[in-house]
Amino acid sequence: MAPRRHTLLFTMGDPAGIGPEILVRTLALPSLRRDARLAAVGDPEVMERAARHARVSLRFRPIAADQFDPKTAGGREIPLIMSTAGVWGAFDTGFPSQETGRAAARAIETAARLALDGRVSALVTAPISKKALQLAGYPHPGHTEFLGALSGAPDTRMLFTGGRFRIVLATVHLALRHVPDSLDVESLSRTLRYAAAAMRNFRWGPQKPLAVLALNPHAGEDGLFGDEEKRVIGPAMERARAEGIRAVGPFPADTFFGHRARGARGDDFGVTVAMYHDQGLIPAKMDGIGAAANVTLGLPFIRTSVDHGTAFDRAWKGGARRPDPAGLLKAARVAIDLASRSGGRRLEWTWP
Amino acid sequence: MAPRRHTLLFTMGDPAGIGPEILVRTLALPSLRRDARLAAVGDPEVMERAARHARVSLRFRPIAADQFDPKTAGGREIPLIMSTAGVWGAFDTGFPSQETGRAAARAIETAARLALDGRVSALVTAPISKKALQLAGYPHPGHTEFLGALSGAPDTRMLFTGGRFRIVLATVHLALRHVPDSLDVESLSRTLRYAAAAMRNFRWGPQKPLAVLALNPHAGEDGLFGDEEKRVIGPAMERARAEGIRAVGPFPADTFFGHRARGARGDDFGVTVAMYHDQGLIPAKMDGIGAAANVTLGLPFIRTSVDHGTAFDRAWKGGARRPDPAGLLKAARVAIDLASRSGGRRLEWTWP
Repeated sequence: MAPRRHTLLFTMGDPAGIGPEILVRTLALPSLRRDARLAAVGDPEVMERAARHARVSLRFRPIAADQFDPKTAGGREIPLIMSTAGVWGAFDTGFPSQETGRAAARAIETAARLALDGRVSALVTAPISKKALQLAGYPHPGHTEFLGALSGAPDTRMLFTGGRFRIVLATVHLALRHVPDSLDVESLSRTLRYAAAAMRNFRWGPQKPLAVLALNPHAGEDGLFGDEEKRVIGPAMERARAEGIRAVGPFPADTFFGHRARGARGDDFGVTVAMYHDQGLIPAKMDGIGAAANVTLGLPFIRTSVDHGTAFDRAWKGGARRPDPAGLLKAARVAIDLASRSGGRRLEWTWP
Repeated sequence: MAPRRHTLLFTMGDPAGIGPEILVRTLALPSLRRDARLAAVGDPEVMERAARHARVSLRFRPIAADQFDPKTAGGREIPLIMSTAGVWGAFDTGFPSQETGRAAARAIETAARLALDGRVSALVTAPISKKALQLAGYPHPGHTEFLGALSGAPDTRMLFTGGRFRIVLATVHLALRHVPDSLDVESLSRTLRYAAAAMRNFRWGPQKPLAVLALNPHAGEDGLFGDEEKRVIGPAMERARAEGIRAVGPFPADTFFGHRARGARGDDFGVTVAMYHDQGLIPAKMDGIGAAANVTLGLPFIRTSVDHGTAFDRAWKGGARRPDPAGLLKAARVAIDLASRSGGRRLEWTWP
């Protein structure tokens, strides 16, 4: 029996950024079209122009959201669910604006509705602009929070996977100065629960230990360089262990990735929890664009995304610096893998 | 003409730690003995016992410091400069103490004197214990500060090299919470000068740009997540540029190593300056033990060291978890490379 083909629903991202270009180039890949059913949400003229600009041969079938039938997503035409129409001409390529923010947001809202209704296996999102969203009156700093609000999710976390490491971030977009005080036992315990639930949802070996990184150099060297390991991370790990989560650490982050994470001493971790953005994303992105995809933990459906931004300076320009679709392709590949692993079930994030 | 063979002087490190074991295993490597003249500073009985414990065949010739002649360091016997004698028996292996701290410190003092006198090409140091040094009454937290004081160096910086990246740290051993306020324009400007002087001393292409990492995620995203990029890093880079240093950045650290640092966009940096310990050492140590060595910038002589600690829990035990000499070998290899690159000249750290 052939493996079931999952349906991936892509959003176009901010129309003034590189989203439409990398999306049409990804949708045109024969290998991806063989391995999954593909559909997109966006603005028909933007998408058509992106295909011409990127010189890919792609036929879209514009439809309304309620006409969408996953079974037709595997054919020669790509179903294009129209979240907006006629946006082209109302914005300047390469510049975020109220118009581009609104168009990007509408695509996300339409896509989330279809995902919540269980009509697609996963959402794969192209990059949006925080600034454009703000100009359009949306309060969400990014996809993660936006989709969380649309889904009624009580909380979300970011996971990066697809490369050498699976990394969950305890804190994300805040100044390094504010990281230590943003880590508290309650929030970190919840991060560990999301990480453990991800290991269960995606069958990464629920019996495997979950690694926790230290905040300070040398894990604080017995309190000499900071006490968060003792005051916050240790108690959060204790609480997690009491809930049946095999949390181990906190490990000094500098030696972890070259040493323990690769099983050099026989260790094998399901997921690694990093305390802050760059601590987790330096190793996650070490192998370059397309090395890892961002997965939102806490939503009832699978959502993956590129790990880069809108790159307005390179959008709709072509030439030697034309945008690389490798990140979006990786997001699609990770989405297919997670859909297979979760067996199409609604994801559960309560623990235990 | 055969390349000149440089003289490497090794220190034994804390005698209760893994230093003596990894040192005898390194000294016994035929390939290293072929490529450099080797000598050691330490306690004769400790070193003899380490050789027997590690089962390496090694003949030491114990001598006083003033008897040391570099020309004899290339023979079948390894000159062992006696910084102490009779220490064995006065300490427990695997535990730092006043005795081990004093013995480790004496070896460093003896070695520094020989290096300052220009009698060796480079110092290669085995790990010491901060705690043991403290118990012995030495105020220095580590080799870097200790050697700085012995050399009368006004300031020092740590560089990691030997692997994919050359990384200088702007701050080192302090709690993450204290990193943002420890970065100031004056201190960071000095870091950039040390990095530029290293590029000149070691001929890493003085015309190449020097990359500077951001402190905050996404380089602060235009002040949204922190203002140190604008308030501190930018002005320090301006000052460096006014002094003829080609400082570029600040780059978001998460994407830098997978992308820009590898020249994916045609960039090629002489050195990269990281703002804090784990930001620089996660990538530096990504390839495991032996991937990089620590080099002290600011001393008049070359000094390299392992990038790990004394590992008291594994010292003098043998068995499957016996210590890996790869880090010390890498430090020796880097020392040979730097000695060749600097042509044996006294290192200068003033800029320009």
